[in-house]
Amino acid sequence: MVSRDKASTRFSMVKKRHCQTFFEAVEKKRADPQIISLCTFIAGAENFFTSSTCSGRIVLLKVNEQETKKEAAFHAKWHREVEFPELWAALNKKSAEELWFKMEPFIIHIGTGTVKNAEKLLEIMKKCGIKRGGIQVLKEGKIILELTGTQRISCPAKKEDRILFTEEYAREILARANKKLAKNYQSLEKFEQECRKSLT
Amino acid sequence: MVSRDKASTRFSMVKKRHCQTFFEAVEKKRADPQIISLCTFIAGAENFFTSSTCSGRIVLLKVNEQETKKEAAFHAKWHREVEFPELWAALNKKSAEELWFKMEPFIIHIGTGTVKNAEKLLEIMKKCGIKRGGIQVLKEGKIILELTGTQRISCPAKKEDRILFTEEYAREILARANKKLAKNYQSLEKFEQECRKSLT
Repeated sequence: MVSRDKASTRFSMVKKRHCQTFFEAVEKKRADPQIISLCTFIAGAENFFTSSTCSGRIVLLKVNEQETKKEAAFHAKWHREVEFPELWAALNKKSAEELWFKMEPFIIHIGTGTVKNAEKLLEIMKKCGIKRGGIQVLKEGKIILELTGTQRISCPAKKEDRILFTEEYAREILARANKKLAKNYQSLEKFEQECRKSLT
Repeated sequence: MVSRDKASTRFSMVKKRHCQTFFEAVEKKRADPQIISLCTFIAGAENFFTSSTCSGRIVLLKVNEQETKKEAAFHAKWHREVEFPELWAALNKKSAEELWFKMEPFIIHIGTGTVKNAEKLLEIMKKCGIKRGGIQVLKEGKIILELTGTQRISCPAKKEDRILFTEEYAREILARANKKLAKNYQSLEKFEQECRKSLT
């Protein structure tokens, strides 16, 4: 147990550091456009901060034999809906590694300093129908929640430089991925609205 | 805030109820075989219980237009590795709804009564490399964590009673699904070992 003062100092330091990182990312255009508004609001709220976040994306991911992500693992990456010719061109671009097609949901890490504020976040999560995630770090002055969406597609796309499915199937999964991405962004928007109502 | 006594009474009641549900599921052979050992151990630990759990599975899921799960949504479901003829037969069985092929990871809900014990679970989670999940309910006497694996495949398989991919691609995704399911069960086993070391 640490004292309330120490916990409060710890929270201020951690928040300051994460806000700096976020504003640098915005400046260098490394932040996902769809999540800047939410993160900016939370950076401005006294009792909360965000650390690593992703708004959701469509990717062609390079994987190794263990089927885990590799460093510099993106063959292609879009934080927006994708047109079929873009995907098809990316798939036809030479690749030594195996590729997976993925539509991945948002993942947000939000920090706060007290259990009471963490409970507020759990309530918002529930209210917005965000079912996956929870508190992952529970120290006085440093509580971190991870929240993720549930819209996903994930399937093997290419090995030994050969596309594994037909063009027709590629069109099918891309249509679904775009639809799921739109739903994912809607869920993120709803979460932002609820944060703006409830967090200070 | 509730008193320590009330919190302790609440925990005992909730644990008793969930343990009953679990043992009934085992008796009626509705519990996934791969998760019975873990849940039985936790039911026997004084300070913990499990509520809904799934060990991970390969499924053909019926979805509606919103691409959400429907009630009675399983066209086929296996909590084990699957042979290709089994999958192919299930795919060729008539279906009015759209079907998705999915390999889904384990999902475990563990309850405990105190923040200290919840922290133990977060530590085990970290030690085992389980990256998704966290505390979702944080009330005195009733703290619930959700933990999930990360091994997944999810892609459209059939619409208007027509299989969307080739037999070759079906073989490819099933091979990956079986491999990922084996990894998923290994992760579950590791988690059980750590629980047996650390939880009482």
